[in-house]
Amino acid sequence: MSVSQPVISIAVVGCGTVGGAVCEILLRDRELLATRSGVRLQLKYIVDRNFDAAKNLRLDDTLFETNLDHVLTDDDVSVVVELVGGTTTARTITEQALRAGKHVVTANKALLAHHGAELLALARENGVTLAFEAAVGGGIPIVRALYDGLVANTVDAIYGIVNGTCNFILTEMIEKEQSYEEALWAAQSRGLAEADPSLDVQGVDSAHKIALMAAMAFGIQVDFDEVPVQGIDQLEQDDVMYADTLGYVVKLLAIATRVGNGISLRVRPAFISREHALSWVSGPFNAISVYGHATGHTMYYGRGAGGAPTASAVVSDIIGIASGTYPAFFERFAFWPDRNPPQKLVPVEETYSRFYVRTMVDDTPGALARIASIFGAHGISIASVLQDELPEINGGDQEPHLVPVVITLHPAREANLLSAVAEIDALDATGEASAVITIVDEHPENVG
Amino acid sequence: MSVSQPVISIAVVGCGTVGGAVCEILLRDRELLATRSGVRLQLKYIVDRNFDAAKNLRLDDTLFETNLDHVLTDDDVSVVVELVGGTTTARTITEQALRAGKHVVTANKALLAHHGAELLALARENGVTLAFEAAVGGGIPIVRALYDGLVANTVDAIYGIVNGTCNFILTEMIEKEQSYEEALWAAQSRGLAEADPSLDVQGVDSAHKIALMAAMAFGIQVDFDEVPVQGIDQLEQDDVMYADTLGYVVKLLAIATRVGNGISLRVRPAFISREHALSWVSGPFNAISVYGHATGHTMYYGRGAGGAPTASAVVSDIIGIASGTYPAFFERFAFWPDRNPPQKLVPVEETYSRFYVRTMVDDTPGALARIASIFGAHGISIASVLQDELPEINGGDQEPHLVPVVITLHPAREANLLSAVAEIDALDATGEASAVITIVDEHPENVG
Repeated sequence: MSVSQPVISIAVVGCGTVGGAVCEILLRDRELLATRSGVRLQLKYIVDRNFDAAKNLRLDDTLFETNLDHVLTDDDVSVVVELVGGTTTARTITEQALRAGKHVVTANKALLAHHGAELLALARENGVTLAFEAAVGGGIPIVRALYDGLVANTVDAIYGIVNGTCNFILTEMIEKEQSYEEALWAAQSRGLAEADPSLDVQGVDSAHKIALMAAMAFGIQVDFDEVPVQGIDQLEQDDVMYADTLGYVVKLLAIATRVGNGISLRVRPAFISREHALSWVSGPFNAISVYGHATGHTMYYGRGAGGAPTASAVVSDIIGIASGTYPAFFERFAFWPDRNPPQKLVPVEETYSRFYVRTMVDDTPGALARIASIFGAHGISIASVLQDELPEINGGDQEPHLVPVVITLHPAREANLLSAVAEIDALDATGEASAVITIVDEHPENVG
Repeated sequence: MSVSQPVISIAVVGCGTVGGAVCEILLRDRELLATRSGVRLQLKYIVDRNFDAAKNLRLDDTLFETNLDHVLTDDDVSVVVELVGGTTTARTITEQALRAGKHVVTANKALLAHHGAELLALARENGVTLAFEAAVGGGIPIVRALYDGLVANTVDAIYGIVNGTCNFILTEMIEKEQSYEEALWAAQSRGLAEADPSLDVQGVDSAHKIALMAAMAFGIQVDFDEVPVQGIDQLEQDDVMYADTLGYVVKLLAIATRVGNGISLRVRPAFISREHALSWVSGPFNAISVYGHATGHTMYYGRGAGGAPTASAVVSDIIGIASGTYPAFFERFAFWPDRNPPQKLVPVEETYSRFYVRTMVDDTPGALARIASIFGAHGISIASVLQDELPEINGGDQEPHLVPVVITLHPAREANLLSAVAEIDALDATGEASAVITIVDEHPENVG
């Protein structure tokens, strides 16, 4: 059987954690893949500047190549796998490969969030495809769910836990009652956070992923710079604990919803109910909830990072290209971002949410009344108030103490909420800036 | 754009809950679907014996057709959607349609579990395809995950909650402390269980689905009659409560695992830890955990039944056929059941599991010792014992009472376990037959 199978030659550019795992699968599992896919996948080049990682994995060193031009001028090669990362070199490599008539498979969400539409268009101009299952959710086939499994749906909303580093840190903060700094350290010491974790913990990586998913799900082009992003790096342990007291769990959510005729995107830490399907997604796992007008709630769960899981997604794209399925999706369907005009997002200030607000107030009569009246003046209703009794640490001390007042609010327009909180924080009776966290409810299902 | 789009004509055969929803989507969402898929889906016939349901939905009555032959001889029609159900008429319709050169889309797991391989082969002989995303997990794109998203994986195991009726009943039994009969009644009164619920509650429907998933995942042909099936209809409320006491939740699981070089399939109620990702899947929802050698644990969650969710899957198959993607998968890949020889399953007696055993014993000295020694004689270690104190209902009554002894066991070969329990149940000191329930642990992940 293998003799008559079509052979497709592949170059993997960038042999780090994911690249190494892709090469391992292509080499070690070649018979399995040939049997399953009906196509023989031949790894012809491993391209990098140095091969320390590749040598550690004992990859076949006859495949090592430092000169990308050799690869791009080799007519044998039909798929280039870009696993360099970043948006500079990776962009150049991707453009060169597409112009050379090579299909490109990438795991690079930053590249696609910033330049996806133009790169997809460039692929089309050159009669090839650009595939990116690995860019969101590691080994979870979520991109396929959006372009294939859910194709009959108008997608109403996406809620994703799409950054394993953040989810691990939050799980540590919740389960071990650690501070953000302690939990970050724990993540770093296990190799789950980079030395410079800012892309992860500031929410930017999650924003890349939701921009990409939203583009596919809604058939729009997203201007990444418009996506409001807030990470977990400002999150305080107190708020994680109050979430628990109130029956919630804090998760960093990447959210895309329809708001009227528009689309709203945002990344932020959120309180979600312990009944919510995303609430139990813990440690480094990822999960994405997609609400379709026909399916209702569907959810996709798995390892969102790591060599082998991400390599699984990369190799599924290579097989999709080799077997002709992905080119058919790519050519036929209308919702690829390059086929849709840029769309203004609904400003987050115009959206409505429930909120949690923790304000430090002087433990003096009337403070709560003033806060309540400010919310009222902005048309915002209070749902619950939690004010602990002041611990009598100082005995008969007569000075006022700052105590936390924890308030949950009924749905409010975000602009109104922010104005109200600014007014509250300007009161003499309040201390440091209030903590404000969105409460995300189960998205309504309109199945039928 | 719509003028130049290819048009594909469709006949829906069987206009019940799912058929009606498919027709609704095809008619109501025709512009959406045309835009997204690049193909115009034209519903040309609604075939049934009576059209009461169709009329209730106000479907276009010019499409009603009672004579299937008219449809099969209409060269315009390229896709027949079989939603009749069952394995008799549905089989005839499917065979006739395939022989007439029509692609067939079906939601019929019973038909595929019993005759899948021959029907797939018949499709191939006639140059068409047979698609069945809707046969497992309703709107969850799990069949696609198996043939596409996870294509680069050796699948190690599948654990599914794939029957919403059973899961609803179990959730009622757990949350409302109802008996099986009470919970079944609740399901029936909400339209979540049939008047004759036996296919669901006896586990047969779940067995159909795991047979189908296993065939795709492992690239084997399964003899359905070999699959050991146990439902929830014998489950006692006491055991549901003891599960809770021990930190578990009872779920009806459809399980497919590799055992040595073989494959083991089974359907049975199981205790799973509250930490397990499947434990929180409640009410009528379905979820399927798939463990790949590269991805590790992935899970797919959503509504496993109902008109619109199942119709979403049916329509995604129609679009897959219309856009040429599904034919490419169907022709290229090796793991379709008709391309693999029948495989003997590993006998369930040869498999190893942890077990929960509840035995009713005389509250007399030495009963527990005898039970423990029987397990020991069969090479089975006891992990925990729970024996409540006897409630002193009868005051000074000297007669022996039957009290429950709840034992959990370390992994044991099922044949040994069953022999031991048979011996225990034959003791004079024991009452009715012991309850035996498998404890299912998180499947080990070998990522990398």
